[in-house]
Amino acid sequence: MKRRDFLKGGSLATIGTLLLNPFGAKANTITEEFKGKKAKNIIFMVSDGMSSGTLNMADLYCKRKLGRHSHWLSLYEDSLVNRGLMDMASASSIVTDSAAASSSWGGGVRVNNGSLNVSPNGQENMPILQKFKKAGKKVGCVTTVPITHATPAGFSVFTKSRNSQEEIADIYAELGFDVMMGGGHKYFDAAQRKDKKDMYSVFRNKGYTVARNKSEMNAAPKGKPLLATFDEDGLPYTADHMSSNFMKNNIPTIAEMTAKAIDQMKNHSNGFVMQVEGGKVDWAAHANDIAGLLYDQLAFDDAVKVAVDFAKRDGNTLVVITTDHGNANPGLIYGKFVNENFDSLQKFKNTNEWILQGIKPTDSIAAVKERIEKANGSVKITDDQAKDILSYYQKAEKEDGVYNPKHLPFRTLAEIQKSYTSVGWISMDHSADYTELAMYGPGSQYMKPFMKNTDIHAFLLKAAQVENKF
Amino acid sequence: MKRRDFLKGGSLATIGTLLLNPFGAKANTITEEFKGKKAKNIIFMVSDGMSSGTLNMADLYCKRKLGRHSHWLSLYEDSLVNRGLMDMASASSIVTDSAAASSSWGGGVRVNNGSLNVSPNGQENMPILQKFKKAGKKVGCVTTVPITHATPAGFSVFTKSRNSQEEIADIYAELGFDVMMGGGHKYFDAAQRKDKKDMYSVFRNKGYTVARNKSEMNAAPKGKPLLATFDEDGLPYTADHMSSNFMKNNIPTIAEMTAKAIDQMKNHSNGFVMQVEGGKVDWAAHANDIAGLLYDQLAFDDAVKVAVDFAKRDGNTLVVITTDHGNANPGLIYGKFVNENFDSLQKFKNTNEWILQGIKPTDSIAAVKERIEKANGSVKITDDQAKDILSYYQKAEKEDGVYNPKHLPFRTLAEIQKSYTSVGWISMDHSADYTELAMYGPGSQYMKPFMKNTDIHAFLLKAAQVENKF
Ligand SMILES: [Zn+2]
Ligand SMILES: [Zn+2]
Repeated sequence: MKRRDFLKGGSLATIGTLLLNPFGAKANTITEEFKGKKAKNIIFMVSDGMSSGTLNMADLYCKRKLGRHSHWLSLYEDSLVNRGLMDMASASSIVTDSAAASSSWGGGVRVNNGSLNVSPNGQENMPILQKFKKAGKKVGCVTTVPITHATPAGFSVFTKSRNSQEEIADIYAELGFDVMMGGGHKYFDAAQRKDKKDMYSVFRNKGYTVARNKSEMNAAPKGKPLLATFDEDGLPYTADHMSSNFMKNNIPTIAEMTAKAIDQMKNHSNGFVMQVEGGKVDWAAHANDIAGLLYDQLAFDDAVKVAVDFAKRDGNTLVVITTDHGNANPGLIYGKFVNENFDSLQKFKNTNEWILQGIKPTDSIAAVKERIEKANGSVKITDDQAKDILSYYQKAEKEDGVYNPKHLPFRTLAEIQKSYTSVGWISMDHSADYTELAMYGPGSQYMKPFMKNTDIHAFLLKAAQVENKF
Repeated sequence: MKRRDFLKGGSLATIGTLLLNPFGAKANTITEEFKGKKAKNIIFMVSDGMSSGTLNMADLYCKRKLGRHSHWLSLYEDSLVNRGLMDMASASSIVTDSAAASSSWGGGVRVNNGSLNVSPNGQENMPILQKFKKAGKKVGCVTTVPITHATPAGFSVFTKSRNSQEEIADIYAELGFDVMMGGGHKYFDAAQRKDKKDMYSVFRNKGYTVARNKSEMNAAPKGKPLLATFDEDGLPYTADHMSSNFMKNNIPTIAEMTAKAIDQMKNHSNGFVMQVEGGKVDWAAHANDIAGLLYDQLAFDDAVKVAVDFAKRDGNTLVVITTDHGNANPGLIYGKFVNENFDSLQKFKNTNEWILQGIKPTDSIAAVKERIEKANGSVKITDDQAKDILSYYQKAEKEDGVYNPKHLPFRTLAEIQKSYTSVGWISMDHSADYTELAMYGPGSQYMKPFMKNTDIHAFLLKAAQVENKF
């Protein structure tokens, strides 16, 4: 095409600078910025069981309530990260569980659902935090579920079953990692363990500080390794945590734990590698619990800010932000009142967990309605709906679910809420969806737009220039 | 940290080349490849109503059946594209419809759901294909739904209502676009239009070739503009199309339409801009019709290959690949048999549309079971399930839905299928999820990882170096 013809063809202004740079902005600069740089530190962040709708709703919440993007998506808005999709399939299924998912990153090999770094043929795969530890780095895990749960365990240990959490606590004591923080007191507590062993004494004898609440965590000295368990099992959901002064005083947020963990390890000359898990995003999805899901995702997002702010100051830290699998594929469904319904979630004060754990078989219909109104803003459910919920307590009906040992009516409540939240769910279990993956910092320039879960293992070692030979 | 200390700290081999390029591969090369290049041609591809689970299932299908990625995701695997998320909200809702969505790109302004490039204050926004036409390019649209439907119309016209498809056919005749192909015969046909106007004569009088089947399409000469309508309303679903020799002989696939449209316009000295829509992916999601959804997404994917192959040969073509909104958030749900259930979709021969349109009130239970077995491989539903479906034909029950004028039991059938497909749906309507966005070719280096729908308008004009001043 001749330029003259082009100009004749319509009213066009093609000027020199426009030709060179029509966008008046620089193209992707990530490649330049981190060229030749090594990831001295790595912070690997996992919002467990985060479907794309969960990421979407958290960002919409921030925009509509706070007038800003979520911290995660502001990294996209500011073109600070590359993003990709990740195939998280396990050895046994196109839909992974958290143990196989964390093992795929942690051990670099696909294992069966339920396994932690033990391949179907029995091969044991050395977890990445052990490799980094041997390479001289400080290492650790932070989570909102038991510190012995699948996602931290997949970076730390190998064992055939993710469910042997007491045994995993034993293994942790041998590993000598530098920071282990989350829930799971019952797996360390002599009174509750089958073997009656006091794991806290074991850790203290190995030089650990043991913290059981926020002030003990804050007081922990930098020179010693730190074990902290802030609750029996998982930590409280963020929505319930925010509504309780007792909890707020005693239990740190995931952002506070992340900040403390970074502080404990950041001055180590060889750097550090840590995993941070928003584990109750997954539990909330399993329960179709919208207040649980949304506010825990937002709490995870605050931890993303802590990690990225540190990485920006530090300049030598790779932050990986991702999820291990979809769960329940929640989404905001079109309807005339979808905006108003979504905004009403700003007034939700407690989770469905809080609602349903607090109902007794002897409660009246009015009491059930009042409890839901208290938790869900000014919403009034009908008598029939309240009766339906109550029937589960009177043993007429029951529901099952991964984290629902009491068979409470989570699905029934979510179905009722759909009409006033506009949030729908496909199920109460994990989905096969490819997962969101973003990276900031040295090494991120090598991220591909599509990655296989197992590729992450070698990727992290390469980014840190640590040889993969353990 | 001193290098010596680092080496002492563990068994590390840090060699010179490793420091410079630990990944043994080049970082993102997109920025380099298209530097300073102009998008002479643009192909804008929309899989309408594609949730992330739809993209996921199509890729899984390709990997498990064909041993390769979907064409869309192979662009990620090969690091040929940048990818981002896009916020598709409309002026009236966080959940857009297809008219407002296409208008946001086409006119660069958010309008209310249902509007085509008319702002809430009445302002009319010039659609992008008119701008490109005035700038001397050839322009066109290809779709699997009526060519007068929301998505092509949003790139082409402004009118307050997306539902006046006969009027949109009139406007198209005035525009003189170069290729318009899809369904929608009834909006052009004198016998079916309210004004009894024969739109085909109008188009022929303006110099158009009119094609009504595949061979007429193939025979259309390059020198003349082309209007083609291959069916009354939407084109058949791909699954049904594949199962019918009559349809295969008469109606082209979306890949065949795309190839023909490129062929019609590619030799134009000023280049061309076209939109390609896989419109029935959305209709299938509205109907929770898994065979409809999966095979239409795969057909769209074949069109992606046609567009990208052309762009690779041409070197001056920007291909944008995206969707306008989520719909029903389908996903593969964990269960022991999820792999087998998903693979059973390879044997599905017809859509739920085909199943349900073919059932009569007088059918026996055995006949209903047989019809579903014929369409869904060797599946046998129960007598009670068949009875439930039949009850909708006997007017005992009815379902509503956007594309369900006969009130057929699409939801009921999808709920039954869930047990043998492992596919779940959150609803039968659009969702607020941010949408997948990928670009290949000149200009793609300026794509941001998060974009607002309205930014696309100026982006395309800039990529083509066409001044935005009409
Ligand atoms: Zn889970
Ligand atoms: Zn739609």
